[in-house]
Amino acid sequence: MKKSVLVTGGAGFIGSHVTRHCLEMGFEVIVLDDLSGGFEDHIPEGAVFVEGSVVDHDLVTDLFNKHKFEYVYHLAAYAAEGLSHFIRRFNYNTNLVGSINLINESVKHKVKCFVFTSSIAVYGKGQLPMSEAMTPEPEDPYGVSKYAVELDLKAAHEMFGLNYVVFRPHNVYGENQNIGDKYRNVIGIFMNQIMQGKQLTIFGDGTQTRAFSYIDDVAIPIAHSVEKPAAYNQVFNIGADKPYTVNELATVVSEEFGVEADIKYLAARNEVLHAYSDHTKAHEVFGAGTGIDLKEGIARMAEWAKRVGARQSQEFGNIEITEKLPEGWGIVKKTLV
Amino acid sequence: MKKSVLVTGGAGFIGSHVTRHCLEMGFEVIVLDDLSGGFEDHIPEGAVFVEGSVVDHDLVTDLFNKHKFEYVYHLAAYAAEGLSHFIRRFNYNTNLVGSINLINESVKHKVKCFVFTSSIAVYGKGQLPMSEAMTPEPEDPYGVSKYAVELDLKAAHEMFGLNYVVFRPHNVYGENQNIGDKYRNVIGIFMNQIMQGKQLTIFGDGTQTRAFSYIDDVAIPIAHSVEKPAAYNQVFNIGADKPYTVNELATVVSEEFGVEADIKYLAARNEVLHAYSDHTKAHEVFGAGTGIDLKEGIARMAEWAKRVGARQSQEFGNIEITEKLPEGWGIVKKTLV
Ligand SMILES: NC(=O)c1ccc[n+]([C@@H]2O[C@H](COP(=O)([O-])OP(=O)(O)OC[C@H]3O[C@@H](n4cnc5c(N)ncnc54)[C@H](O)[C@@H]3O)[C@@H](O)[C@H]2O)c1
Ligand SMILES: NC(=O)c1ccc[n+]([C@@H]2O[C@H](COP(=O)([O-])OP(=O)(O)OC[C@H]3O[C@@H](n4cnc5c(N)ncnc54)[C@H](O)[C@@H]3O)[C@@H](O)[C@H]2O)c1
Repeated sequence: MKKSVLVTGGAGFIGSHVTRHCLEMGFEVIVLDDLSGGFEDHIPEGAVFVEGSVVDHDLVTDLFNKHKFEYVYHLAAYAAEGLSHFIRRFNYNTNLVGSINLINESVKHKVKCFVFTSSIAVYGKGQLPMSEAMTPEPEDPYGVSKYAVELDLKAAHEMFGLNYVVFRPHNVYGENQNIGDKYRNVIGIFMNQIMQGKQLTIFGDGTQTRAFSYIDDVAIPIAHSVEKPAAYNQVFNIGADKPYTVNELATVVSEEFGVEADIKYLAARNEVLHAYSDHTKAHEVFGAGTGIDLKEGIARMAEWAKRVGARQSQEFGNIEITEKLPEGWGIVKKTLV
Repeated sequence: MKKSVLVTGGAGFIGSHVTRHCLEMGFEVIVLDDLSGGFEDHIPEGAVFVEGSVVDHDLVTDLFNKHKFEYVYHLAAYAAEGLSHFIRRFNYNTNLVGSINLINESVKHKVKCFVFTSSIAVYGKGQLPMSEAMTPEPEDPYGVSKYAVELDLKAAHEMFGLNYVVFRPHNVYGENQNIGDKYRNVIGIFMNQIMQGKQLTIFGDGTQTRAFSYIDDVAIPIAHSVEKPAAYNQVFNIGADKPYTVNELATVVSEEFGVEADIKYLAARNEVLHAYSDHTKAHEVFGAGTGIDLKEGIARMAEWAKRVGARQSQEFGNIEITEKLPEGWGIVKKTLV
């Protein structure tokens, strides 16, 4: 009999790739996604789709009662880190309480391994490179919610023996990314802007750096982690090693679309300036990665993006705090003339 | 005009004392409490009582719209640390999401200072004595929820300028404590057991140590912290310095009731064995404390407890995970004969 697995957020960017790899591994895959940020047509054929929220505790309980999940991959989240300051309650409900619903049921149904996508947001402004040996000190509600789930998983392991694997990816990009999300994923935002003939917008002077990671280098280890006992009850940074400035990125993306980089600089946000991780631990357990570099990865994603076209950006409807909201992120400010 | 302040959990043990001190400081005090663990008749005369939950976001919003709170003292919580493993969702909803409702409104209404009672549970099994300079690593859902609120407050301060004071008390005891709560507060549990002619129950061999803290040494600094700018945006351990074993405690309490300590030892729980804090920082800002030692504090509490009498213990109605639930903590186990 096929092993049954749950992938939450399986209609999303990383989740749709994880779902595909899980199907290739021979699993029966149940996708739970509320389509708040994902797309039904990104769910690979062969997976069973259940539309609904991880926050809906009755639905989650029903799912676990119905299926005997061997593994749970929990990727559903609202991941706009910068926006999380302004939507605190929504952030903790979705990213923490939703996760707890799944942890509760995984304990009760003796799931063999719970895979969780945390984030480098847990580190805060730590030393660089970020390493798993550091004690996290997250600095925004998104990072706090991710770290709280990590700690809760550790507590559930100690108390009930639930095995887990935690991944801390960063700045992942590739096919199936929601390029219409104006609150995060600078690469998708750039591609969407270029295809709409708009200027590329950058918060600050563009010298902030990130190690942009191609999807395969993240989704493959996530999917296969359940079959690697050495990964159990461990935390892994995962993604690319080489940091680029956002200005360099703008150039690479523009070149791929055959246009000149035309940049509009906006006021800097409250964000970490430099962020890159040490991946030694992941390489030891999962091997060296695909070796796909930024230019090659961007080329693949651009090919896909050109095919599907630009996406309309959605406003996040329910901003809780409007004070200090960055330009263009919601409520239109009235200017006195 | 009087300054208006909100005390959540003001019908509870520490909250009722904080309310009294706030009234003495000349504040208008609004108490918000859902009476899940507190008692209406513990709310000091002169305070305005609103019955309801901090989790009820509409109610919280209304309260802040109606009153112009200068300060918020947030003490409402479900604080049974050991039980939190078994009621994860309830724990995060009450202790984290409830707190976030208050932080959101405090930002929006420009509250001058937000006082939060965290706990030494944030430290986990750290080095001893626990000091504020350590980076917390909580090990149970209660501690995780408290630490998440601390981090969120820090983020709200950095982003929006909300001032806060965080207290990490431990093992507080005194008048108005809910001695009918069988899930926490060993001193109250002992007194209740003695007054009902029952054996004193101890998890493990009773050699675990705690620095039991008399209420005045905790409630007075909490109440006055809003008027001490040196306390703003700081974290303080607060409470007594001298640790006692739970066996020693059983002797002191029994003596105060004029009985021999008659102890029933139960299987050890998953709990921190030794816990005491360094209070240098609190003494610098708040002074040296009352100097009331364990014997004197127990005498005061016992006098009160004898007056009000034993309390019926309530079962916590909604256990989420029953596996590994300690003896006597809920669901009665059926034994095969
Ligand atoms: N993309 C990155 O760079 C990155 C970096 C670090 C961590 N992560 C984490 O990886 C995971 C996947 O991120 P992604 O980039 O694929 O984002 P995504 O938005 O494309 O995918 C998230 C999916 O979760 C779904 N979802 C959101 N809330 C839900 C809810 N309450 N119930 C059910 N489904 C819900 C969305 O509809 C979406 O399909 C997230 O947990 C995210 O925090 C992503
Ligand atoms: N007593 C201790 O030793 C100790 C130690 C560390 C931290 N604390 C913290 O101090 C605070 C007060 O603790 P306490 O010992 O006085 O406990 P308590 O149970 O006596 O008081 C808590 C009060 O909060 C109320 N409450 C609970 N959930 C609520 C909700 N959702 N909405 C509104 N009110 C709600 C209860 O009815 C109760 O009156 C808590 O935050 C606790 O975590 C206490």
